[in-house]
Amino acid sequence: MSIIHNVAVSKKSNIYFDGKCVSHTLLLADGSKKTVGVIFPSQLTFNTAAPEVMEVVAGKCRVKLAGSDAWQDYGAGERFSVGANTSFQIDTTETLDYVCHFG
Amino acid sequence: MSIIHNVAVSKKSNIYFDGKCVSHTLLLADGSKKTVGVIFPSQLTFNTAAPEVMEVVAGKCRVKLAGSDAWQDYGAGERFSVGANTSFQIDTTETLDYVCHFG
Repeated sequence: MSIIHNVAVSKKSNIYFDGKCVSHTLLLADGSKKTVGVIFPSQLTFNTAAPEVMEVVAGKCRVKLAGSDAWQDYGAGERFSVGANTSFQIDTTETLDYVCHFG
Repeated sequence: MSIIHNVAVSKKSNIYFDGKCVSHTLLLADGSKKTVGVIFPSQLTFNTAAPEVMEVVAGKCRVKLAGSDAWQDYGAGERFSVGANTSFQIDTTETLDYVCHFG
């Protein structure tokens, strides 16, 4: 089982898009933040504040970054980066387990 | 924010009942296990292996333990215990954030 060690986890979840996205916030010893979550099959647009790296743990999606015309496929073990204060479209075709790394 | 400190968290989720229940597994320093998760509005029956304590972090549900005729209401800050190798019915009326403490 792939795990993240030495974190504090919020008991309360973050629920977005009527439950299509569910995550829990992780606080790391170095002060950084991650979320670990699930995106159910859907077509969603996420807005970013901080820059983030989305790590796909399981499932399948395609992603289009704001300002790009190209969709890119991602699956288990792959990741993509998104800048601050922008957005990305994500079409989840198989339920996604992900870790979002901030900062 | 109510948090659980010093844990390892699984990157992959546990998804039950077509996504009505989503959780992540937490491993504690003492070797014990918890899950932190969400139950969306639904009527579900859970089977237990190990004994567990369900801590309701947010939301509302009513619960009927196997062998009982009585439904009991639970909300934020409340908890209920379930024995090993039994089951309970849970009617979630407002999306539930929970922590399940095993062992």
